Amino acid sequence: MKLIRFGEAGQEKPGIIQGDQWLDVSASVRDYDEAFFAQGGLKQLHAALAARPATAWPVVPPGTRLGPPVARPSKIVCIGLNYGDHARETGAAVPQEPIIFLKSTTALVGPNDTIVIPRDSVKTDWEVELAVVIGQRASYVTEAEALSYVAGYCLHNDVSEREFQLERGGTWDKGKGCDTFAPMGPFLATPNEIPDVDNLRLWLTVNGQTMQNGTTAELIFKIPFLISYLSRFMTLLPGDIISTGTPAGVGLGFKPPVFLKPGDVVELGIEGLGTSRQSVQAYEPA
Amino acid sequence: MKLIRFGEAGQEKPGIIQGDQWLDVSASVRDYDEAFFAQGGLKQLHAALAARPATAWPVVPPGTRLGPPVARPSKIVCIGLNYGDHARETGAAVPQEPIIFLKSTTALVGPNDTIVIPRDSVKTDWEVELAVVIGQRASYVTEAEALSYVAGYCLHNDVSEREFQLERGGTWDKGKGCDTFAPMGPFLATPNEIPDVDNLRLWLTVNGQTMQNGTTAELIFKIPFLISYLSRFMTLLPGDIISTGTPAGVGLGFKPPVFLKPGDVVELGIEGLGTSRQSVQAYEPA
Repeated sequence: MKLIRFGEAGQEKPGIIQGDQWLDVSASVRDYDEAFFAQGGLKQLHAALAARPATAWPVVPPGTRLGPPVARPSKIVCIGLNYGDHARETGAAVPQEPIIFLKSTTALVGPNDTIVIPRDSVKTDWEVELAVVIGQRASYVTEAEALSYVAGYCLHNDVSEREFQLERGGTWDKGKGCDTFAPMGPFLATPNEIPDVDNLRLWLTVNGQTMQNGTTAELIFKIPFLISYLSRFMTLLPGDIISTGTPAGVGLGFKPPVFLKPGDVVELGIEGLGTSRQSVQAYEPA
Repeated sequence: MKLIRFGEAGQEKPGIIQGDQWLDVSASVRDYDEAFFAQGGLKQLHAALAARPATAWPVVPPGTRLGPPVARPSKIVCIGLNYGDHARETGAAVPQEPIIFLKSTTALVGPNDTIVIPRDSVKTDWEVELAVVIGQRASYVTEAEALSYVAGYCLHNDVSEREFQLERGGTWDKGKGCDTFAPMGPFLATPNEIPDVDNLRLWLTVNGQTMQNGTTAELIFKIPFLISYLSRFMTLLPGDIISTGTPAGVGLGFKPPVFLKPGDVVELGIEGLGTSRQSVQAYEPA
C-alpha cells in the first residue's frame, strides 16, 4: 500500500494511492498516527480495501495538497554522515558508529510545501534521505528482528541550516528543526512495495540542476542495524521516523558552498518512493 | 495553581494541589496536554476552581503515583552548560550562546518513578534542572514578551549517560533520551506561584549526600532570553518543555567521576517547585 495524507495543513485526512488515483479512506481510518500503527491499522486497512472495490472509495480531487504521510510522530531521529561520499565532502571522518540527532517534529511539512529560510539564515541546505517509519514499539530489538518493526518507507528532505548546525555552539539540533525543514512524502510505501530497500537510487535537483545522485546501496549503517542500534538509546514508538542520512552533493560540499535562496526550486526523489518539490521563500513575519 | 497528573503510567488524570490535599479535576479537564494549554485551559480551570468549593472536588488518595505534570509534549528542549560552575567542572568553555539539544519525549516519567540504567551503561549521571513549560505557540518572540508564553515551571532531573553522550560519536542526544531519563514534577507551578524564578535554590542528593546545591540566580542565559532564542530555531508548542541547565555537582565533575548504580536513591528539589525521589535499578528485559 501507498499511504497519503491530503488536505489543508493540520486538517489532513488519510488516503491511499491506487493506480493513478488517490482514494479517501477516512471512512475507515481516523489518521495515520501512533494509535493507527500501534493498533494494527495497516492490516485493518488492507482488509478494508480488499473487502470493497476501489470504486466504493471517494476519489481525492487532483491537485489536492498532500501533507506528510504520517501524522506528527513522537520523534524524528536522524542519522548523520551515513554515506561515505557525504562524510568526505563535508570534511568529516566516516563515523565508527551511527551519529544520531533529533529533528523537532514542528519541522514536518508536506512534500510539496514551501521551504522557509529562517530569519537571519544564510546557509540553508538540502539533503535527500530515505526515511523509515516505525510500525510498533521498539526497545532493545535485535538486528535480525528489526525489519519486522518497519511500517514503511518515505522520501524526506532533511533541510539543514549549516551555520545554525555547525557554527553556533552545541549540537546539530539547532540547525535541523526550523519550521518547514522536514518535507516528507509524497507517500508512505509499505515494505512489500519496495523489493530491495538497499538498492534505491535517490537524487535531488535545485532549479533543475542535479546536486545529489546516489544509491541506498552506499549506506554505511544499514536499516536493520540502525533500528537495533537506536532502540538501545531510546524507545521508538509507532509512527516514529528514522531518517537514514544523505549521499554526497549537499550545498555545504561545494567549493565554494552553495545555499538555497528565495525563488529556488528543490526537487527530489527516491526510486519507488515518488518525488517531491519545494519552492524556497524567505521568512516573513506572520 | 499547582497542577499534578496522578494515576498509573499512561493512564494519568489531571489534578491540582490545594493546601495539603490533591484534588481530582478530571471532571473539568481531560488532560494537561497541548490542547489544554492552547485552548486557554489554565484560565478555564482557574474559573472552575473559583466556582466550586474545594470540598466539591474528589480527593486523590494519599500514596497515589504521580506522573509528569504535563502530558507528552511535542518536544523537550534542553540547554547545555548554562551554569558557569557546571561548565567549568566538565572542562567545557562557558558558551557564547545557548547550547541546545533535544531529549526524546519517551524519556518522560513521573517524579518518583524508577531511573533505569540502560543496558551496557556505566556512566548514568544526574542533573537537577528548572524546567519551563510553554503555554502558547511561540515563534520569533522577543525577549520582552517571552514570559507571557510561559504556562509554568517544574522540577526536572535531566538524567544523562555520559559515555553515550560524549564518547560515542555525534551529538549529546544519544545519552539524553533513554527511557526514564526525564523524571518531571511533582507539579507544574503557574508563574504566580513563583515570585522570583531567577532566585530559586536547587539541590540534589544521592543516598542522602548533597551533590548539587545551586541557585537559578547563576543561570548564564535567563529564561526570557532562552525562550526568545529557541523560538528562532524551532516553533515552541503549548506544553513543550525547556529544561534550563544544571549547576555544578554532577557525577562527571568528580575526580574520579561518580555514576549511579542500582540501589542508589536520588532526591532533588527546587525552592517552590517541590521535591522528587527516584530509586535506581539496572535494565531488565521485559
